[in-house]
Amino acid sequence: IAKEVAKLLEMKAQLGDEGKSKFVLKTPKGTRDYSPKQMAIRERVFNAIITCFKRHGAEVIDTPVFELKETLTGKYGEDSKLIYDLKDQGGELLSLRYDLTVPFARYLAMNKITNIKRYHIAKVYRRDNPAMTRGRYREFYQCDFDIAGQFDPMIPDAECLKIVHEILSELQLGDFLIKVNDRRILDGMFAVCGVPDSKFRTICSSVDKLDKMPWEDVRSEMVGEKGLSPEAADRIGEYVRLHGGLDLIEQLLQDPKLSQNKLAKEGLGDMKLLFEYLTLFGITGKICFDLSLARGLDYYTGVIFEAVLVQQENDHVEESVSVGSVAGGGRYDGLVGMFDPKGRKVPCVGVSIGIERIFSIMEQKVEASAEKIRTTETQVLVASAQKKLLEERLKLISELWDAGIKAEMLYKKNPKLLNQLQYCEDTGIPLVAIVGEQELKDGVVKLRVVATREEVDVRRENLVEEIKTRTSRS
Amino acid sequence: IAKEVAKLLEMKAQLGDEGKSKFVLKTPKGTRDYSPKQMAIRERVFNAIITCFKRHGAEVIDTPVFELKETLTGKYGEDSKLIYDLKDQGGELLSLRYDLTVPFARYLAMNKITNIKRYHIAKVYRRDNPAMTRGRYREFYQCDFDIAGQFDPMIPDAECLKIVHEILSELQLGDFLIKVNDRRILDGMFAVCGVPDSKFRTICSSVDKLDKMPWEDVRSEMVGEKGLSPEAADRIGEYVRLHGGLDLIEQLLQDPKLSQNKLAKEGLGDMKLLFEYLTLFGITGKICFDLSLARGLDYYTGVIFEAVLVQQENDHVEESVSVGSVAGGGRYDGLVGMFDPKGRKVPCVGVSIGIERIFSIMEQKVEASAEKIRTTETQVLVASAQKKLLEERLKLISELWDAGIKAEMLYKKNPKLLNQLQYCEDTGIPLVAIVGEQELKDGVVKLRVVATREEVDVRRENLVEEIKTRTSRS
Repeated sequence: IAKEVAKLLEMKAQLGDEGKSKFVLKTPKGTRDYSPKQMAIRERVFNAIITCFKRHGAEVIDTPVFELKETLTGKYGEDSKLIYDLKDQGGELLSLRYDLTVPFARYLAMNKITNIKRYHIAKVYRRDNPAMTRGRYREFYQCDFDIAGQFDPMIPDAECLKIVHEILSELQLGDFLIKVNDRRILDGMFAVCGVPDSKFRTICSSVDKLDKMPWEDVRSEMVGEKGLSPEAADRIGEYVRLHGGLDLIEQLLQDPKLSQNKLAKEGLGDMKLLFEYLTLFGITGKICFDLSLARGLDYYTGVIFEAVLVQQENDHVEESVSVGSVAGGGRYDGLVGMFDPKGRKVPCVGVSIGIERIFSIMEQKVEASAEKIRTTETQVLVASAQKKLLEERLKLISELWDAGIKAEMLYKKNPKLLNQLQYCEDTGIPLVAIVGEQELKDGVVKLRVVATREEVDVRRENLVEEIKTRTSRS
Repeated sequence: IAKEVAKLLEMKAQLGDEGKSKFVLKTPKGTRDYSPKQMAIRERVFNAIITCFKRHGAEVIDTPVFELKETLTGKYGEDSKLIYDLKDQGGELLSLRYDLTVPFARYLAMNKITNIKRYHIAKVYRRDNPAMTRGRYREFYQCDFDIAGQFDPMIPDAECLKIVHEILSELQLGDFLIKVNDRRILDGMFAVCGVPDSKFRTICSSVDKLDKMPWEDVRSEMVGEKGLSPEAADRIGEYVRLHGGLDLIEQLLQDPKLSQNKLAKEGLGDMKLLFEYLTLFGITGKICFDLSLARGLDYYTGVIFEAVLVQQENDHVEESVSVGSVAGGGRYDGLVGMFDPKGRKVPCVGVSIGIERIFSIMEQKVEASAEKIRTTETQVLVASAQKKLLEERLKLISELWDAGIKAEMLYKKNPKLLNQLQYCEDTGIPLVAIVGEQELKDGVVKLRVVATREEVDVRRENLVEEIKTRTSRS
């Protein structure tokens, strides 16, 4: 069949453009391949993140790319329409995972785990409108770190913020700000502003748009579309423009209305504790308590946070412009209970690093710089200057591989020396091990340093050591 | 909604088993989660494989988990029925990838790449009958290494076999054997045995069953189901029982019938060259030219190979029993051309490591041994012996994190020292940094070695160095 199809395609191609129009050579909408160069950058970002997660003692787990459809049902609110379903081919109904949090909760409930600190780096799937230049894809990586378990308040929550701070500092993406709020403060605020209980979630999702829309538009959505009273909306408007640090928390704890609300008081008390811990970590400079932060997902129950990169507009340091969220997370104490047959809860707090956006930025930075990215780690090219030395090259490269040296050779019987040297230039291989008649007689190999063109004869028995020494320096 | 569902589930649970029967807490059939311990073993296997691929100068790429359905169409013969399709939710028709070879060929054609050596490690999907205890899943990893490009014969092919040899030696799974054959030799053999051209592929797939079925059964399938003449089947029977090394190749090159067939002659000539290169690599001891090796997939065009683990039956070294394939691959010179609008070919040869089976074996080995697998890399636990030192622990752990030390602490205000030490025992953390009133006054930290219970006071400014020194030894 394969041969027949190939023949047919060939025939069609000869007929002109007809064949082409029949078969589209592309990846699915909203997805992409990663080239070796992109992979090299991706690995660099992953390494920084994984190193941080491991520094904080996290274990790692993995879950399947699809879940039973019912596992995802009722977890994402309106966004459920973005879930990819698999075709019913007989058997179970399956969906591609939408995030790593719900599979994590399912994993905890299924294995009756009440206590774990884990990270999980994997692809998730959303049938969203892709905006690939801004790093928004239908298939994209999430890098999640979560702490599950019943602990003393705000200690794991503070660690999650420390982790965001460490990763964004390490990656050197420019100045950033981590906004923090608490679902309980939001709910308390809605209550004292006169929002009916039934409208909490929908008003919350309006507030969530404040980073993209001006207050006036959000207000008219609340009043116009969602039927909130103008007075309640205006009271919300007073609160959501507030942001600050410990001083603001103290101020709100004195607020005559908020301080009377049980939920808000709890949230503000915990927020104060959180800021004390963050002060001990020395990171409050980048943290901002922001009453307009709401976060879309339904399952948050306590602290929520979001990190954004801030850009100075030109040189006038007038106002910093947010270029979008690069990390987010929060506390979700109810999600595991949704999976437990007896509803037993496992409190969780976690953070998700927005790797695709970070990756886009890193890629642009590399593109803009003169840096040449190597896509292999090859230490030495085994080459020859004369003909008929294929067997000798094979023998030598085999010795080097067996000694753990990263080595390549051209797959030609009689390659030209110039081509071999050019290959090193192109791919960044630092050394060339050249075998020739004379070297073989003398029991040596000519080792050439590509950068300096320096050449030395090295005794064959010393070659491995010599290559190791010369490549460990860089 | 989330809260409501949780409430409902809770209510149902109180009613008894009803709630349970409604919601099944499991992963989809044929899939599994990886626990931290399994991940630790998996990482170990991956590392060995990736190190080998990099030693051979491979770049790495990644492709989406799904492809356009038509990309996979017509590549897998009968096995196409095992492809997972996505539900048509509007837009393109998509399928989960079935292997990494077809996406690789699509990637080469799409990007007009005629020359690359790459590896790709990712999950693939087959709606097959799972046999999970034997490492057969519906979602499983493939680890592929491929060399694409027009090169002198058999040099890349020999390197693929060297790679299999290196990886299986490195992983110490026990004795192994790499069977080698060539599609051209098979086709030539079929021709001289009197198999009609139209029956080549179907007879080939019968031969492929010889590792699981005795010759008699395969013969009756050929004659009974597939309508081959008994004479032709018997002639095939003569050939497929042959296996050996260079001597067998020489013998077949003299075979009066085979030597007259152009394809077989080409294949045998290349096989001889391959064995010469494998001799230079010093690995012929584990390589066997085996005329019964056929490999299922349609797209192979030249050399094919498969590695199996061999087990000595008890102590009598009578006959070695194959416990199944752990690697396989071959040459597929036509596949990329199927994607190119003009049918331009890019010759390819590659190997796929059967990681799930290897992983199952490794897991059993670890289970059987007394080895305790660590699931974190934490170097030190920050602890206190007295109450009210949470702030001091937070300050110290923050210093350690910032210095790159992998550190944990218990998320308790006032944990008991015994619990903190027990946590180290349980998780394998080698050191404890203990802060106490006296230590704080003296500007020191008490460093305890968990294994020996040795305790030393270390000056706070020297703590990072001391931890690094003590943990780099192991």
